[in-house]
Amino acid sequence: MAQEHTVKAFDEDITRLRGLIAEMGGLAEVSIGEAMEALTKGNQDLANGVIARDKRIDALEAEIDRLAIRIIALRAPMADDLREVIAALKIAGVVERIGDYAKNIAKTSGKIEGRRQFEPLTLIPAMAEIATSMVHDVLTAYAARDAKMAAEIVARDDKVDAFYESIFRNFVSHMMENPATISSGAQLLFVARNIERIGDHATNVAEMVYYAATGGYLTDKEDRAGA
Amino acid sequence: MAQEHTVKAFDEDITRLRGLIAEMGGLAEVSIGEAMEALTKGNQDLANGVIARDKRIDALEAEIDRLAIRIIALRAPMADDLREVIAALKIAGVVERIGDYAKNIAKTSGKIEGRRQFEPLTLIPAMAEIATSMVHDVLTAYAARDAKMAAEIVARDDKVDAFYESIFRNFVSHMMENPATISSGAQLLFVARNIERIGDHATNVAEMVYYAATGGYLTDKEDRAGA
Repeated sequence: MAQEHTVKAFDEDITRLRGLIAEMGGLAEVSIGEAMEALTKGNQDLANGVIARDKRIDALEAEIDRLAIRIIALRAPMADDLREVIAALKIAGVVERIGDYAKNIAKTSGKIEGRRQFEPLTLIPAMAEIATSMVHDVLTAYAARDAKMAAEIVARDDKVDAFYESIFRNFVSHMMENPATISSGAQLLFVARNIERIGDHATNVAEMVYYAATGGYLTDKEDRAGA
Repeated sequence: MAQEHTVKAFDEDITRLRGLIAEMGGLAEVSIGEAMEALTKGNQDLANGVIARDKRIDALEAEIDRLAIRIIALRAPMADDLREVIAALKIAGVVERIGDYAKNIAKTSGKIEGRRQFEPLTLIPAMAEIATSMVHDVLTAYAARDAKMAAEIVARDDKVDAFYESIFRNFVSHMMENPATISSGAQLLFVARNIERIGDHATNVAEMVYYAATGGYLTDKEDRAGA
């Protein structure tokens, strides 16, 4: 009876932990989308909203940390359960950084001049869409404890990387032909790089989901692509 | 007697955990220095060494994760002790990313053409020196559980950020005057950004050291600067 009570309390704690991560991930996903819109339209209000939301994301991470530590201290989980709590701690840390990248993109938004003249700008939202789908799907994989889906997301990161390489070359050509756009172009390259990093971080989360579900590691990039 | 035995075993585990983090941090520090030398001199062998070392850094993180989980599972640490193990887990994650930034810089090294013509290149090692000193000092603060030193490191990050802003402007001017250097210049801007991120991550570690030592948070950037 006492043990049943403990198991139920642990399950409730874990459900709450997973709920907080879902909430945090949802906010990060919204932030990426809004940061893109702020960037392409030069909408400063939207950019400010993304910057403000990042504080909420940070607060959620701190709440997840506290809850995870309390679960470990009070429930002393073993094996799979402990692995799940540790994975939640690490995933919260990575989602927090995804929020930071969205904030960085929102901050860049105000530094871009001559949006109309900068055709390669249209490539960035397409790249962001893939990265956002990775963030979305990795949270679904986490909620469903789906190791197979997690492995698929890891493979998808190669697309984001290839997109990034192509954007880089495209931007450099454009900047060479239009030296007046160099300053804005360099800022946009950072945006592209931030999106590439969001893809990397979604990949990290996918690896953690895989680890939490199976106890095994998806190791090398080389291996991953074939996974 | 049994309790004394447990305390001793826990202390040994924690000492081993701290030793692994010191080793990992030391490797990351060496990697930043060598990545800078590879970059400024165009030394591909050195760059390859940094790229190879990153696998060792990743392996150390996995080892720290496993040990931390084992400590929690076997010793069921409470309060301060648990906070210390959790901090070690998180610090290892951040040091791993510092290693990644050094690897990124090393990879960029082969993409830079016309080093001699690129005077702003000389600014980057100076910026890297501050970031490296932050990484070095934060590991010292961690080893010494020195909250005051950790707060000082957080304040130092503003210098790295200011340096970065100045490098950005300098590079953009140089690229406008010499459009042929745009491709290399954009790569060097990424290097500068990577160093700026290393400073941010050293700051994150400093916050965790502060947390592990005091249980409190160094929160806002605004607050930090005055800390």
